[in-house]
Amino acid sequence: MANRENTKADPGNFFEDFHVGQEIIHPTPRTLTRGDVALYTALYGSRFAVQSSDAFAQRIGFKAAPVDDLLVFHVVFGKTVPDISLNAVANLGYADCRFGEPVFPGDTLSARSRVIGLKENSNARTGVVYVRTTGVNQDGRMVVEYVRWVMINKRRPSSPAPEPVIPDLPEAVAAADLMTPAGLDPGSYDRQLAGSAHVWDDYQPGEKIDHVGGMTVEEAEHMMAAHLYQNTARVHFDQHAARDSRFGRRIVYGGHVISIARALSFNGLANAFKVAAINGGRHVAPVFAGDTVYAWTEVLAVAEPAGPSDQISDQISGMGALRLRTVAAKDQPCGDFPGRDGDGKFDPSVVLELDYWVLLPRRT
Amino acid sequence: MANRENTKADPGNFFEDFHVGQEIIHPTPRTLTRGDVALYTALYGSRFAVQSSDAFAQRIGFKAAPVDDLLVFHVVFGKTVPDISLNAVANLGYADCRFGEPVFPGDTLSARSRVIGLKENSNARTGVVYVRTTGVNQDGRMVVEYVRWVMINKRRPSSPAPEPVIPDLPEAVAAADLMTPAGLDPGSYDRQLAGSAHVWDDYQPGEKIDHVGGMTVEEAEHMMAAHLYQNTARVHFDQHAARDSRFGRRIVYGGHVISIARALSFNGLANAFKVAAINGGRHVAPVFAGDTVYAWTEVLAVAEPAGPSDQISDQISGMGALRLRTVAAKDQPCGDFPGRDGDGKFDPSVVLELDYWVLLPRRT
Amino acid sequence: MANRENTKADPGNFFEDFHVGQEIIHPTPRTLTRGDVALYTALYGSRFAVQSSDAFAQRIGFKAAPVDDLLVFHVVFGKTVPDISLNAVANLGYADCRFGEPVFPGDTLSARSRVIGLKENSNARTGVVYVRTTGVNQDGRMVVEYVRWVMINKRRPSSPAPEPVIPDLPEAVAAADLMTPAGLDPGSYDRQLAGSAHVWDDYQPGEKIDHVGGMTVEEAEHMMAAHLYQNTARVHFDQHAARDSRFGRRIVYGGHVISIARALSFNGLANAFKVAAINGGRHVAPVFAGDTVYAWTEVLAVAEPAGPSDQISDQISGMGALRLRTVAAKDQPCGDFPGRDGDGKFDPSVVLELDYWVLLPRRT
Repeated sequence: MANRENTKADPGNFFEDFHVGQEIIHPTPRTLTRGDVALYTALYGSRFAVQSSDAFAQRIGFKAAPVDDLLVFHVVFGKTVPDISLNAVANLGYADCRFGEPVFPGDTLSARSRVIGLKENSNARTGVVYVRTTGVNQDGRMVVEYVRWVMINKRRPSSPAPEPVIPDLPEAVAAADLMTPAGLDPGSYDRQLAGSAHVWDDYQPGEKIDHVGGMTVEEAEHMMAAHLYQNTARVHFDQHAARDSRFGRRIVYGGHVISIARALSFNGLANAFKVAAINGGRHVAPVFAGDTVYAWTEVLAVAEPAGPSDQISDQISGMGALRLRTVAAKDQPCGDFPGRDGDGKFDPSVVLELDYWVLLPRRT
Repeated sequence: MANRENTKADPGNFFEDFHVGQEIIHPTPRTLTRGDVALYTALYGSRFAVQSSDAFAQRIGFKAAPVDDLLVFHVVFGKTVPDISLNAVANLGYADCRFGEPVFPGDTLSARSRVIGLKENSNARTGVVYVRTTGVNQDGRMVVEYVRWVMINKRRPSSPAPEPVIPDLPEAVAAADLMTPAGLDPGSYDRQLAGSAHVWDDYQPGEKIDHVGGMTVEEAEHMMAAHLYQNTARVHFDQHAARDSRFGRRIVYGGHVISIARALSFNGLANAFKVAAINGGRHVAPVFAGDTVYAWTEVLAVAEPAGPSDQISDQISGMGALRLRTVAAKDQPCGDFPGRDGDGKFDPSVVLELDYWVLLPRRT
Repeated sequence: MANRENTKADPGNFFEDFHVGQEIIHPTPRTLTRGDVALYTALYGSRFAVQSSDAFAQRIGFKAAPVDDLLVFHVVFGKTVPDISLNAVANLGYADCRFGEPVFPGDTLSARSRVIGLKENSNARTGVVYVRTTGVNQDGRMVVEYVRWVMINKRRPSSPAPEPVIPDLPEAVAAADLMTPAGLDPGSYDRQLAGSAHVWDDYQPGEKIDHVGGMTVEEAEHMMAAHLYQNTARVHFDQHAARDSRFGRRIVYGGHVISIARALSFNGLANAFKVAAINGGRHVAPVFAGDTVYAWTEVLAVAEPAGPSDQISDQISGMGALRLRTVAAKDQPCGDFPGRDGDGKFDPSVVLELDYWVLLPRRT
């Protein structure tokens, strides 16, 4: 409540501070290292062979084990929080997220966003801001880009409403727009070492997979994760402030739940080593420390990706794409595939629904 | 209970799935990095100078600080869990564990196991499986090998029992079979920097050492440890499932307790920088978050190691071996050396008894 | 209480074991790596661009992102604990702390201390020991040096008191003694990427900054921090022993609180990327797991540093120094700047008062 105009601390942007077309350079470039990779393993126990082993990754054409796509996403996302969502009431959604150039230890990531939509809410106290964020490496190559929209407080209810602009967002990234790492030779992919005989050809639309395992979340873990991503959202870290909030507790960063679900999905999708795109994500309910997260996946579609020619290797025939819907539930094993009922209402255990594309080897 | 035969998630092997002579290639090769080493330090506070300092390690002939032997063990062990012990009722024991080629950051480890024994239990519902596991680096050199035996559920009580085969296991690794890293020059070992004046010559069989310190275990720590090792055993991670188990709580990975005891043992064994072999280990009682672990050690024997000639440096005369028995207790300082009573019954505080060989410099 | 003279475990030094002029070589040299840096980020979420990004650091003349100054301090401090403060009753203070050569991943740190003062307390049961500790890199270059004094138990009250010697300590490090990294070119410093437009010229003595954010401390985090620093002080790790102590709980390492306050201070001091000196520090009250730490800062003075000529770049005109007083409070947001009242008595929420110098770019 104090007047902070005399101080140098950043109060974050309010709805009035955004305009369509605005470009925001986000602070704190970040070199990702093998240290970050080790922490990511310690936080989720991820077991995809390509990200786990330099030797395995090199055998199929990478220069080293690439950094997990979701770690890249979280780091880029974290950069946007101080500028975009410090005064957010709610993260409403993601769309049109594509992963580009692979990231290796030693690469430095930075991020910028462009405001592509604005709409004040009818209560005149909040509005929705749409941004397209692009993460790039030290050479300026895109590593991930995505749209997200958040509900943000206005500084003053009396501020005039801007002209509403709502961007046209695709329901899903087209398979033809998925980017496959250049130079891969999936023919050398060792399924036995990777942990599963099942490749792209073995999955069918409509197939459901229970990932069986469960992972209980601890306060220290989700805070270390969010700190690793330099995410500054107060709700994850400040129990004193949370005490008087709606939930009375710190809220686990939604991306932490996505990474847990992805790590659990290894059991059933061990060869789906690369996330190529996220079509949409919905944090159906908050997760708190002490909750145990389970997950299951439905195969929505199968496709052959074909990205821009300079991104595509000529061995592309050796890779296939699956469009997946992964659902995470808390304190509810997923053998019965908890999801939506006939009216589209979620089972009370559901915390996350994620629609995304993965790449995996196909039989040649 | 659900029939998982239609899904791609791995239900793990049951007793019927093993046969003597079977070779299992375990998934997920793993490149160990300085990130893993930093996490190991953060989890246990280990202070052995050789593993802590590149400069110190190089002075005695290593190319860099080698990775802690127990971190190597845990990573290799972790790989075997999905294939060997996902349906285990109990880990019954280890034997004949030898460490081989030193591991350095950047090395990639993988693991394979051979089934060397099987015995169905009289209840016809479980059986004991004996496996010899070998961890190798990217050049195929052995980094650690060991035998362990686990009690595993049968899929169906009606399955016929296999011919019982019980392997002949040594009570301890012979001193002559211990492997000393090649090219070491212990003459340059700086005891002052390492933290103790006591070398091999100063220890006597029968000597007991209280390591004084205590370390309280937290859920976040033991889960991050087990995740770092890509250990997937459900009992460590799933509080929802644990609620209805015998203990009602997640169980700390036994290897986490071994690493705690080893880190505590620095106080009294600061120059015992290398674990050369584990003769046997027994997790006498489970450890849970909130327990404080203490440890003490008895010197069982002193010996000069003499490994296979290609593994042995000609400065071998500068190293000696101690056979140790380290006992860890919970919520019980070890000034009185809690152990077994006259009937061989353990003090109720004891959680671990580990019989192993360490190497340390000797006076020249 | 047991007579430990027959064992090899180190009971730590008592007051009688120190004499003025004594030199102590501390054990366990430590190579700092990108793994340690990643853990530091995960523990505090630090966002200073120079330490976060190799690319950013290289643009202003560093060979890579330097290791955070406080991580260097904690590692050097940790080495001194087994020799200096294992039997400490209280850490009484720090003074005259200067940071020297920047530390980069791969550097190996070691530490030595010289006893510069002794004074027995009137109760004849404890005394105060003053040490000057120097941390050096593998080339013997000073990376940090500081004086601290601790109250230490005597082994026996009957031991004769030494001649009291109380060192003459500066109230603050002189601006002229601050060391600026050689070869820096702050002209290439990108304030937008660093997260703030405010440089040295924008700060005024007397100015107060509320850093707004709050960080809740967890047991697993502060123990992993202290373990990372190889700090062995029992009060941080042993809940069984703590149960019967004055507080009944483990005490968070004071340096952990300093690092939290420093990370929070980014919001308002984003360009103050280097801690050059610590003039004094006071842990006003202990911090326990569950506490939420907030912080605010007062600018005490502005100055141009001018260190020894071989340490100073000729672009030194591009850097300025601020002397800051940062106060951390628990469970109390700092919008009202809780500090001392008219009588010098601290607000009950205050846990830390730190007086230090930082460097930041100035307008050229």
